[in-house]
Amino acid sequence: MKLQLALDLIDIPSAKRLLEKIIDLIDIVEIGTPFILKEGIGAVTEIKTVWPEKEVIADLKIMDAGDHEARIGFNAGADIITVLGVSHDSTIHRALDVARDIGKKVLIDLIAVKEVKKRTQKLDQVGAHFICIHTATDIQDQDLETFHDIQQAHAVLKKTKLAVAGGITPENLPLISVYHPEIVVVGGYITSHPDPRKAVLAIRKELDN
Amino acid sequence: MKLQLALDLIDIPSAKRLLEKIIDLIDIVEIGTPFILKEGIGAVTEIKTVWPEKEVIADLKIMDAGDHEARIGFNAGADIITVLGVSHDSTIHRALDVARDIGKKVLIDLIAVKEVKKRTQKLDQVGAHFICIHTATDIQDQDLETFHDIQQAHAVLKKTKLAVAGGITPENLPLISVYHPEIVVVGGYITSHPDPRKAVLAIRKELDN
Repeated sequence: MKLQLALDLIDIPSAKRLLEKIIDLIDIVEIGTPFILKEGIGAVTEIKTVWPEKEVIADLKIMDAGDHEARIGFNAGADIITVLGVSHDSTIHRALDVARDIGKKVLIDLIAVKEVKKRTQKLDQVGAHFICIHTATDIQDQDLETFHDIQQAHAVLKKTKLAVAGGITPENLPLISVYHPEIVVVGGYITSHPDPRKAVLAIRKELDN
Repeated sequence: MKLQLALDLIDIPSAKRLLEKIIDLIDIVEIGTPFILKEGIGAVTEIKTVWPEKEVIADLKIMDAGDHEARIGFNAGADIITVLGVSHDSTIHRALDVARDIGKKVLIDLIAVKEVKKRTQKLDQVGAHFICIHTATDIQDQDLETFHDIQQAHAVLKKTKLAVAGGITPENLPLISVYHPEIVVVGGYITSHPDPRKAVLAIRKELDN
């Protein structure tokens, strides 16, 4: 299980300062959607340039123009870009084609997808590299479905790898790690913690158990 | 009917050069999703600063963190921001709350929404300022549903205003303008035209008929 750190409500200098303290404990650095909206895709380049050995994922949440927007992410240095699972199939195909051409990867974010099992099977068949069961920030106070969705996705995936995101803490991580996702995405628990290194160590302890 | 110019595959200097030639014929300037991904939200500020009298819409296609991401757009100077119709209701509510607080507006993009009539009725009830029937770039060669969707949305809207986007040209515009949308969004036809001013004039001729 890899640990992906989601950097959302942050700017480039603060992101670099945070990463300097904890980068040795992180497998994948995510340049989050609000971070990209604020700073532009240059944020990906800035981070990848300092830590070229780390995988960097650009959370573009692509909904249309799959080929063009995927290229924006990959050209900036991203190893993985994200496409929304609620988008049209052709958007997903176009992003996947670009990724395959240049040996990079696509994560399909299933946020707000209603038929998770059916969509997961389809995405597995078309060769998505990752699917992500993602509990939206905006429904984390009302969510009851996440573990059910993880279970369903885990049961049908053949080649595509599983990622899990949204409100993950050391407390709920054991409920997720039983499904051995390839990637566990943690954001706020680390970035909002008074001692981020302590927070990452608590997550890693559960992950590496 | 207002004309919204979508600026997608462009950078800030080229956008300014284009706008200088045609801004008198444009009602709303859209800073498109790929434009924002490349340049960051600063692109909105740059354009709004030069043409403060024009409405500027930031095509953020928000899918989560509705309040936070809406603020990113509005704080940068956008008059209108976009949220995806496929997002959770709470994401839409949060973005609308932010907009109402500061007297700005939200356009809900119905791209890839399956039950257009039902979703449109709901969005009208919750007070969305605009809904947009949007034919994705990635399906413009296979689309048969757009006019049906426009018709359905038009029939049920009470307060919310209608916008239409995706592959609009002077040739297909008459089929759309019979429904008197508040906003007609045109991108590629103008931005890829060898003579953009001629292209806008052709669109305006149909709009102002």
